[in-house]
Amino acid sequence: MEIMVIPSVNEARADDLTNKTVIVIDVLRATSTMLTALAHGCKEIFPVETVLQAKQLQQSHYLMGGERACKKIPGFDLGNSPFEYMGDHIAGRSLIFTTTNGTRAIQKAHKAGTILAGTLLNGKACATAAIALRKDIVILCSGTQDVYSLEDGVCAGQLVDELVQLLPLSATDFTINDFGLSMRHAFCHIQPNITQALMQCSNGKRLCKLGFQDDVLYCSQLNLFSLVPVIRDGKLVLPG
Amino acid sequence: MEIMVIPSVNEARADDLTNKTVIVIDVLRATSTMLTALAHGCKEIFPVETVLQAKQLQQSHYLMGGERACKKIPGFDLGNSPFEYMGDHIAGRSLIFTTTNGTRAIQKAHKAGTILAGTLLNGKACATAAIALRKDIVILCSGTQDVYSLEDGVCAGQLVDELVQLLPLSATDFTINDFGLSMRHAFCHIQPNITQALMQCSNGKRLCKLGFQDDVLYCSQLNLFSLVPVIRDGKLVLPG
Repeated sequence: MEIMVIPSVNEARADDLTNKTVIVIDVLRATSTMLTALAHGCKEIFPVETVLQAKQLQQSHYLMGGERACKKIPGFDLGNSPFEYMGDHIAGRSLIFTTTNGTRAIQKAHKAGTILAGTLLNGKACATAAIALRKDIVILCSGTQDVYSLEDGVCAGQLVDELVQLLPLSATDFTINDFGLSMRHAFCHIQPNITQALMQCSNGKRLCKLGFQDDVLYCSQLNLFSLVPVIRDGKLVLPG
Repeated sequence: MEIMVIPSVNEARADDLTNKTVIVIDVLRATSTMLTALAHGCKEIFPVETVLQAKQLQQSHYLMGGERACKKIPGFDLGNSPFEYMGDHIAGRSLIFTTTNGTRAIQKAHKAGTILAGTLLNGKACATAAIALRKDIVILCSGTQDVYSLEDGVCAGQLVDELVQLLPLSATDFTINDFGLSMRHAFCHIQPNITQALMQCSNGKRLCKLGFQDDVLYCSQLNLFSLVPVIRDGKLVLPG
């Protein structure tokens, strides 16, 4: 089994993703927020790349959510804060969702065999689900406008760490690329002070300045959920 | 002051390097070997990108060194092992040197204000020299054929760690990009077992298979030298 971590969306080549299990990560905040919505009863999420695509899919009973420049899109129901996706207004609803980086990463991964949504909030469950699929695993960090983001790298490191622990001790037929090995080391060093690290990285600082400090605190929690969102027929859902 | 770490040569944009202090890293093995040659009395090194350029520069009293696919280039005097650059045959000599990644990274950095050669062997000295230049610092990992290499990232992390310790405690006007922050964490976690980590990364494993295990052991030593090679008039030399 090959485990490959890709630092940002623009470094993902279609060939690297085809028929693999791809775990898409956008810790601040797209995958964390979509996981939170599904955990609170959201029925399904249509992750789309552009605002135009979102509006073309729009139906009266759908919720519209997402961000541009970290802020709610004009005319949309909800922004990209996980706290907006916790109430009764979410349960049973379909959600159209578009963000600058996270939903673009999901689109980029469309040739994958399976696409899972990874976050710090569900890293252990995500690694368990990926191993069970018995295919090569690509961990795709969304990054921010084609640049690597610390929070996604740290989550990739968490996933590599969990994956290695899940492999049988006798397993010798697996490889981890150098970026994945490095992220595992970074995660292990950051883990005791992970909230602080997320507050000090580029996106964390930007979100705190914009008043979203609680989002950063929330998204930095490890393994709050044992749920693993998966793409089925273009929609992000909880399986089973 | 800005401190930016760039993961591999193909991600370096000329704009990011112009007038900055650029520290070029190729731990396995180009910058480690060139540092070793200079430490053993080599007078100057011409780092060139291609074998053709090397041959065009050739003069009878010059040594020719370098590698392709980790091996000595046909017709050259020496390969890319640091142990080949330690004897009396090096002292006082001029060296023309070409490798797959490291010398290419130096060429890529030609718009820099100052170019220094960084390795694990001289990380502390390199950070000290860079701080003294009082300009923004770019740490350019060579990587391997445009892909990130663990050993260069770890050395970048060592440099960031040294730089932060050299800044006055009161300093608040510096920024480190997310990749640099992550590499610092990775270095701090790897440091107690750095030799083992270098043996297990992609280039380390390749070199061990080719019989260069001692090179990997040698290049994984921290701060063996307090020397800092610098590019002057296109040649790598020790200043002063």
